[in-house]
Formats: sequence, C-alpha cells, structure tokens
Amino acid sequence: MDFDVSSHADGHALQRLLDELGRLPGVGPKSAQRIAYHILGADPEEARRLATAILEVKQQVHFCPICFSYATHDVCDVCGDQSRDRTRICVVSEPRDVSAIERTGTYHGLYHVLGGVISPMDKIGPEQLHVRELLSRLADGDVTEVILATNPDVEGETTATYLSRTIKPLGVDVSRLASGLPVGGDLEYADEVTLGRAIEARRML
Amino acid sequence: MDFDVSSHADGHALQRLLDELGRLPGVGPKSAQRIAYHILGADPEEARRLATAILEVKQQVHFCPICFSYATHDVCDVCGDQSRDRTRICVVSEPRDVSAIERTGTYHGLYHVLGGVISPMDKIGPEQLHVRELLSRLADGDVTEVILATNPDVEGETTATYLSRTIKPLGVDVSRLASGLPVGGDLEYADEVTLGRAIEARRML
Repeated sequence: MDFDVSSHADGHALQRLLDELGRLPGVGPKSAQRIAYHILGADPEEARRLATAILEVKQQVHFCPICFSYATHDVCDVCGDQSRDRTRICVVSEPRDVSAIERTGTYHGLYHVLGGVISPMDKIGPEQLHVRELLSRLADGDVTEVILATNPDVEGETTATYLSRTIKPLGVDVSRLASGLPVGGDLEYADEVTLGRAIEARRML
Repeated sequence: MDFDVSSHADGHALQRLLDELGRLPGVGPKSAQRIAYHILGADPEEARRLATAILEVKQQVHFCPICFSYATHDVCDVCGDQSRDRTRICVVSEPRDVSAIERTGTYHGLYHVLGGVISPMDKIGPEQLHVRELLSRLADGDVTEVILATNPDVEGETTATYLSRTIKPLGVDVSRLASGLPVGGDLEYADEVTLGRAIEARRML
C-alpha cells in the first residue's frame, strides 16, 4: 500500500506531515492520514498549540541530575519534594516507568532511572547505565531499601539480579516487585491496580 | 484512570503535550503517553521536523477554489493537471475521500468536495455544502458524468439521492459507487482494491 499523496491536491506539506507522523510509535499509515486530516481541518490555534507543545517539551524537559528521570526544574519534582520518603529508592529502567508507578499512588519514596537494562546482545552493561550514580546515592546511609522495578522480562530480571548482588553487600535491603505482573510483559502497560498490588507485595531478595 | 503526570518529574510541558496529543483522533491517553515519551527520547531534530510539518501544513494548504479539495498552489494538483479527464466529476464529502480514490489509481477525472453531507439533524442542507459551485461547474456542458462517491451510510445516500435528482434534469449522467463497499462503513477506510472495483462497477442512477 502506498500512501503517497504528493501526486494530487494535498501537495508536499501534507506528505511531509504524513512522513513525520508515521515515525511515531503506534501510528501506522492510516492513523497518520487520519491525524493529518484532523490537523488540516482543525482550528489553526489547535495546530499551533500541538506544535508548540512538541517544541517546548524538548526545550524544557531534561534529565534530573539526581535520579535521571525527566525534570523541568533543576531537579525533578520527586527529588525536590521534601515530603517524599528518602529512605527508599525505586529503581526503574526508563522515565516512563516513573510515571507508571506514580499513577498507582502506592509509592512515596524516591526513584532512580537506569536509562536502560543490562543487555549483552546490545553491548549494554552496568557501565552504560546509571548504576554508579545509584551506588553513590546509597553511600551516605540514608537509604534503607532499594526496590528493583525493572520489567519482568529477561533483561529486567538480569539487571535486577546484578543490582541485588551489588547492593546487598552494602547493608541495604533489596526488594523486587511482586509477581502478579504478567511475565514477559511491559511495566509501562500494567494497569494501576495490578502495579499497585505488585508494589505492596514486593518480596525481599 | 488518571494520566496526570504534573505531580512528578515530568512537569507541565509534558502534561501540555499529553493534552494536545490526546485531542488527535484515535490517540487515547496511553497512546498519547507513548508518543510523548518517544518525542522526549527522540533526536531534537526529529521533534523539530514534526512541529514544523504541523505548522507548514496549516500555512501552505488551503482549499482549491474550483473543487474545494486541499491545494498548495492556486488550484489543487488534480484541477491543475491538464491530462485529467475533464468530462467526469467525482463528488465526495471530504478532501480525505479524494486521497482514498486517488490511491486506487482507477479514476482519472476531476473531483468536487462537498465539505460535508446533507444532515437535517445537524442543520446541514445543500446550502451549507458546495452544491451551488458544483452546479455552476456543470453549466458549461463539458462534464458528461457525475460520479456520486459519498459514503454508503444514511447521510451519504440522502446526499446522493438529492444530487441525483438535481443533476439528472441538466442532461448529465449520474452514477453511484457500486455496492461492494460495506454498508454503514466509511469510504476513508476501504482498501484500495475494493474501492477501485466499486468505481469500475459504478451503477447508473
């Protein structure tokens, strides 16, 4: 199937928009076309707001220097929130996993985003992740528990096992999200209740 | 389910992007979040290209003054293409329907976009559509056939019946896309082969 429309009325600007929309995750050629025609038919102000939101999110959002989640201020809202429980750090693979856990309302500690998982196939070892920064956060002794919330798939389990072996000798409790999450699944897509229960029923390692 | 993330790391810029993405057709809260995180993690140049494509499509694309499809030049590419068959006009509801028919490669005539369909419930009658402009295109006698390609649903059939009764007295042949399209369906989502066959097997009214 060919969705090239440059041969008729819509011209090059529409084709460029279709190309760019088609790069987005979960947006196939038909979805891209539907979105593009929606934008064409929309209030110009709505299109401008969408374009501005895309540009501003790139300009204003950066990595938190403490936990490596996304931040709009010097540090992210969690690291900057003095009411959070500073004795617990929940370790996740990606910033989106922070959002997933925050939505459960179950967890009130801090986070640490690894920026990926250990994957020898992709030549990603602990040195390529924010592991060193995690260990230095544990050095001052305030943190008593690290919750390993990497995905329940092969790389996530490998990463959790590695971190558990590295952190336990420091005298810090290490826990893992409870089973209950579908094995081989993706933490990002778990519903709030399931993920919330998995946090509450986390098992000590 | 609440996808508000303004309470933590991602801040307001991300929430604004989620809000804007959520307005797009077929993009629910989870898709919006997936796309937003893709944009956050993407090359800044890719985000800039997407934002630019959205703005440019609104700046550069306007309605063709002849057929009311989208155009980037004075008239749309179909109206401006002297090799098209100028004895036939295919009447569609929306500009996206022009794209759908162009993709079949079956039709080489001209188009006329009504800008909607007759819908008494929404107070849309022939006066609210580009019917008058269609009739004046038929006045010079070059056009010998009008193909009514509105959707095979209630409003589309009503519109086709109205146009057929209005146009046939002018001595112009009037045809309708063949059955074969799923009744109650949407022309925009028909596959090329089905839609192409429906054009070839159009029935005279």
